[in-house]
Amino acid sequence: MTDLVLPPDTNNLGTMFGGRVMAYVDKIASIAGMRHARRTVVTASTDSFDFLQPIRVGEAIRLEAFVTWTHRTSMEVFVKIETENLMTGEVKLNGTSYLTFVALGDDGRPVPVPPVIPETEEEKWHHATAPLRYEMRQRRREERKMRSSPPLV
Amino acid sequence: MTDLVLPPDTNNLGTMFGGRVMAYVDKIASIAGMRHARRTVVTASTDSFDFLQPIRVGEAIRLEAFVTWTHRTSMEVFVKIETENLMTGEVKLNGTSYLTFVALGDDGRPVPVPPVIPETEEEKWHHATAPLRYEMRQRRREERKMRSSPPLV
Amino acid sequence: MTDLVLPPDTNNLGTMFGGRVMAYVDKIASIAGMRHARRTVVTASTDSFDFLQPIRVGEAIRLEAFVTWTHRTSMEVFVKIETENLMTGEVKLNGTSYLTFVALGDDGRPVPVPPVIPETEEEKWHHATAPLRYEMRQRRREERKMRSSPPLV
Amino acid sequence: MTDLVLPPDTNNLGTMFGGRVMAYVDKIASIAGMRHARRTVVTASTDSFDFLQPIRVGEAIRLEAFVTWTHRTSMEVFVKIETENLMTGEVKLNGTSYLTFVALGDDGRPVPVPPVIPETEEEKWHHATAPLRYEMRQRRREERKMRSSPPLV
Amino acid sequence: MTDLVLPPDTNNLGTMFGGRVMAYVDKIASIAGMRHARRTVVTASTDSFDFLQPIRVGEAIRLEAFVTWTHRTSMEVFVKIETENLMTGEVKLNGTSYLTFVALGDDGRPVPVPPVIPETEEEKWHHATAPLRYEMRQRRREERKMRSSPPLV
Amino acid sequence: MTDLVLPPDTNNLGTMFGGRVMAYVDKIASIAGMRHARRTVVTASTDSFDFLQPIRVGEAIRLEAFVTWTHRTSMEVFVKIETENLMTGEVKLNGTSYLTFVALGDDGRPVPVPPVIPETEEEKWHHATAPLRYEMRQRRREERKMRSSPPLV
Repeated sequence: MTDLVLPPDTNNLGTMFGGRVMAYVDKIASIAGMRHARRTVVTASTDSFDFLQPIRVGEAIRLEAFVTWTHRTSMEVFVKIETENLMTGEVKLNGTSYLTFVALGDDGRPVPVPPVIPETEEEKWHHATAPLRYEMRQRRREERKMRSSPPLV
Repeated sequence: MTDLVLPPDTNNLGTMFGGRVMAYVDKIASIAGMRHARRTVVTASTDSFDFLQPIRVGEAIRLEAFVTWTHRTSMEVFVKIETENLMTGEVKLNGTSYLTFVALGDDGRPVPVPPVIPETEEEKWHHATAPLRYEMRQRRREERKMRSSPPLV
Repeated sequence: MTDLVLPPDTNNLGTMFGGRVMAYVDKIASIAGMRHARRTVVTASTDSFDFLQPIRVGEAIRLEAFVTWTHRTSMEVFVKIETENLMTGEVKLNGTSYLTFVALGDDGRPVPVPPVIPETEEEKWHHATAPLRYEMRQRRREERKMRSSPPLV
Repeated sequence: MTDLVLPPDTNNLGTMFGGRVMAYVDKIASIAGMRHARRTVVTASTDSFDFLQPIRVGEAIRLEAFVTWTHRTSMEVFVKIETENLMTGEVKLNGTSYLTFVALGDDGRPVPVPPVIPETEEEKWHHATAPLRYEMRQRRREERKMRSSPPLV
Repeated sequence: MTDLVLPPDTNNLGTMFGGRVMAYVDKIASIAGMRHARRTVVTASTDSFDFLQPIRVGEAIRLEAFVTWTHRTSMEVFVKIETENLMTGEVKLNGTSYLTFVALGDDGRPVPVPPVIPETEEEKWHHATAPLRYEMRQRRREERKMRSSPPLV
Repeated sequence: MTDLVLPPDTNNLGTMFGGRVMAYVDKIASIAGMRHARRTVVTASTDSFDFLQPIRVGEAIRLEAFVTWTHRTSMEVFVKIETENLMTGEVKLNGTSYLTFVALGDDGRPVPVPPVIPETEEEKWHHATAPLRYEMRQRRREERKMRSSPPLV
């Protein structure tokens, strides 16, 4: 997905709002999730996100996403955001993140999703390290619910 | 900040998009950052976010944010998202997150921000634990840049 | 409700459109009406509104609303709009208005709403003077329907 | 100006938001003001507005506006809103209102506008009654500023 | 339909996006089609469109549309786009196009529409030349389907 | 560019507006033009477009665009629109079109663009047939300007 950054996407400095970037990330990741599960999906969590570069008006934002790993009814999706300067062709890494989605059946309840078979080196790395991230999210989630104040991560 | 969830904010199941929630979170947090710094601010990072409850059409989303801690030119902002069922008055915790912002001078370069003096118990807890989160973010950010593939968190 | 004024909200002079302000006013007032009635509500009228101050890009618009008085199925809501300069903290009154809403049942027909019990001095003043405003609106509405040209107010 | 009412314009009952109607009203009225003054204009006030009919998805909203009277740098604009059922051709009066605009010069300060020469019976009626409405608005505005609480109308 | 061109409608040069103009054209043409057919309509095709003049922020875009000819369940609609400089009153032709729409019954299937009876010279010209354009579109459409690569026009 | 079709993009039948599709087409084509020219570009014309398939809520719209041919300061861009059913993976051709763009220098005036060197069979076909389409557009444009009524195509 490639899209132009336009004035309504930006603040007074002409750089794209963080929240607007996050909305794109959620959209591209949910398309990846729906393609994998062949189901409607809802966002369960997003992991941390660092804005390594500001994105400016007139640049193009480019997003890539793929499902890295699944666990019963949930999927982990990896998203990479890049900025392309259309005047020079220069491409910069803007950030990366993991999101998790849950697949829903017609009755709105979670349904199992097929497993991921990683192929490239990059896919294998994300797949192999996914269970550890899953563990950390579970712990994080439990802490938040119990203490009703946020954990450290 | 309280806002109604309307049809354009939602997917086919009538629940609010994760990306739309994240856009609200970024906006309310940046207002908190600007109030503290009396400067324009840009989002440097968002920590993880768990969607504990779906938010439905006709409900109100309520957001609260305050600056917890500062470090030279950056501020950590804590955000709490709640859902209010306007037909019953029931309020549910939807999620919490930390974002970091950098204050910018008129020339678009980072400028120092005043320190935070926490007052309530809640503020003191967030303030005391902030340096540890700061450390974790620094490590995370360095890893991402070096390996150009994302860290585990 | 506090929101940032952003470029898409503004005209060529960098000030917020009157129509955009009115849209915020309607939204915050309808949330107040739904909270009171625990029902879906529709706008029946807005009283006059004076824009005492222009609202500029980068400022925050702050809105407050509460139900002042009810009459069978309708509610009068008072709204106050202020502008906050986030760089200085200065807050200015932007305007005030009254709107009336009608509560609707599941069949889309008007249903009675509970009465208001005013507590503060401000609430008591609005409550005490509401029947007089109600009278004026009734007369205004009748005149408009009959003459199909607008009354003087 | 004729426009279709689409799903994003509406609430859960499929009727158009009051605030959305008011945004259209402000836009059409400001076009009328700019045409008359040949200047940029800003909204100074809107008079009361009654929603005589709900506007539904799939209907067309039709708006008409003309400048009725001027006073140095300000103009009074009359707006009529109608709903057209595109399936039957039926047109209903939805409401009317007066707005006032101020014309601005290139330096952003008010500049005088040419007078209105009314031609039709309708235009003459609005023109003849305008000074009285002007008086009422002046009084209303003063009261609001002084008491910082709203007047009765 | 007359509408103001606002900053969010424009690119970095302050001129309106071609795609935004085309969205207006589709909307006004579908209103004309619905008025004629008294049915819901869907766009079947748009003919070529030349942007003769850039449209700038602060100008008004004016659109006119009427049904020129029908063929069983389809209608040809002619649209004219003009730009009005609100500071000078100057009006320029921006472009013209033909669109075709199909009328749909309550079951979502095409239904016949009444014929057009042209009255003015302009209407008669468009009506008389419509069957020839219809032929060209049919041929174009068949070619596209068969070769899955676009025809020359 | 792949994007989800969401409720605000659609009419009452749950299918995407023609005008919304055209806005996407213009955006993706202008990105292709900017990448080729390394300049800001403006839309000069769009050729005819047939909507072969309705696009529904929950489907993904996929767009591809490349520059086929250039002529001094103008570029012809070919766009293909497909619909992907995310529940089944089925992809359908939705339509194709040609647009022409003009590259602009910093002073807002047209500047020459580099030529296209076609590589694939598809690119060669579009490149070889482009001068003929260019001729037809020139003739069409002249006719429109002179007669101020539209040509047959």
